[in-house]
Amino acid sequence: MTLHSMKLVTVICEALAREPLVRLLTECGAHGYTVFPVEGAGAKGGRPGDIAEYGNIQLEAIVPPAVAEVLLTRLETDFFPRYTIIAHESDVRVLRPEKF
Amino acid sequence: MTLHSMKLVTVICEALAREPLVRLLTECGAHGYTVFPVEGAGAKGGRPGDIAEYGNIQLEAIVPPAVAEVLLTRLETDFFPRYTIIAHESDVRVLRPEKF
Amino acid sequence: MTLHSMKLVTVICEALAREPLVRLLTECGAHGYTVFPVEGAGAKGGRPGDIAEYGNIQLEAIVPPAVAEVLLTRLETDFFPRYTIIAHESDVRVLRPEKF
Repeated sequence: MTLHSMKLVTVICEALAREPLVRLLTECGAHGYTVFPVEGAGAKGGRPGDIAEYGNIQLEAIVPPAVAEVLLTRLETDFFPRYTIIAHESDVRVLRPEKF
Repeated sequence: MTLHSMKLVTVICEALAREPLVRLLTECGAHGYTVFPVEGAGAKGGRPGDIAEYGNIQLEAIVPPAVAEVLLTRLETDFFPRYTIIAHESDVRVLRPEKF
Repeated sequence: MTLHSMKLVTVICEALAREPLVRLLTECGAHGYTVFPVEGAGAKGGRPGDIAEYGNIQLEAIVPPAVAEVLLTRLETDFFPRYTIIAHESDVRVLRPEKF
């Protein structure tokens, strides 16, 4: 049993961002993704205490490190100005790296 | 594109703990959270094999390391004696650290 | 407040694999698990661009490292040939290690 290092990229956003996000994933070279319906609240705008609903999906994709970098860069430049969105990256180890 | 180290604190608990948990998050300085409806089973009490439903939400918050420490300490002292709950922490890297 | 290193094993699969997966978890020594209903798409078969629905649950279990190794080995040998499934492992730190 051999494990291979990959990145898990997680995006929490408004449901309306789902379709453009899935297109972005495909363009960046991701081979799959998972979508969770979620509830939540987050900081919006610059004012402290200004808490608002921030959307209702969490989208996760496991990708090679190079794909994660392209994906996060595109999220920052193309999605952050347009959608209420947060994104993070973490380390995971997978079986069958050819799937990702 | 610059990533910043944060902690992802995950709590799995009975739905009835949701409101006090959200209050705790706010008190500890978290700026947002995500709630997932879940099913599951877990060890309850000390007897091996004593598996019971352990609740139906998973709550996640991304916070700076210092907030994670306060949050986990408060969970241990105030919530563990009172609710069926598990909690864990992991490392994530975020864009836009000012959101957390 | 003391944290203890554990492994988070995550399995994304067809809902029909749920019951045999839960049996596997028990056999391998996991003391609990969480199930999320999800949607998603992933690479299926060897052909690039051959994207298909890959199932509708994500199952997560927090286990000691030795249990994770047994579990991932069994997934590879017994489940991967039979089900549409992906699996990954990551590092988490828990309170109350005796629960896992």
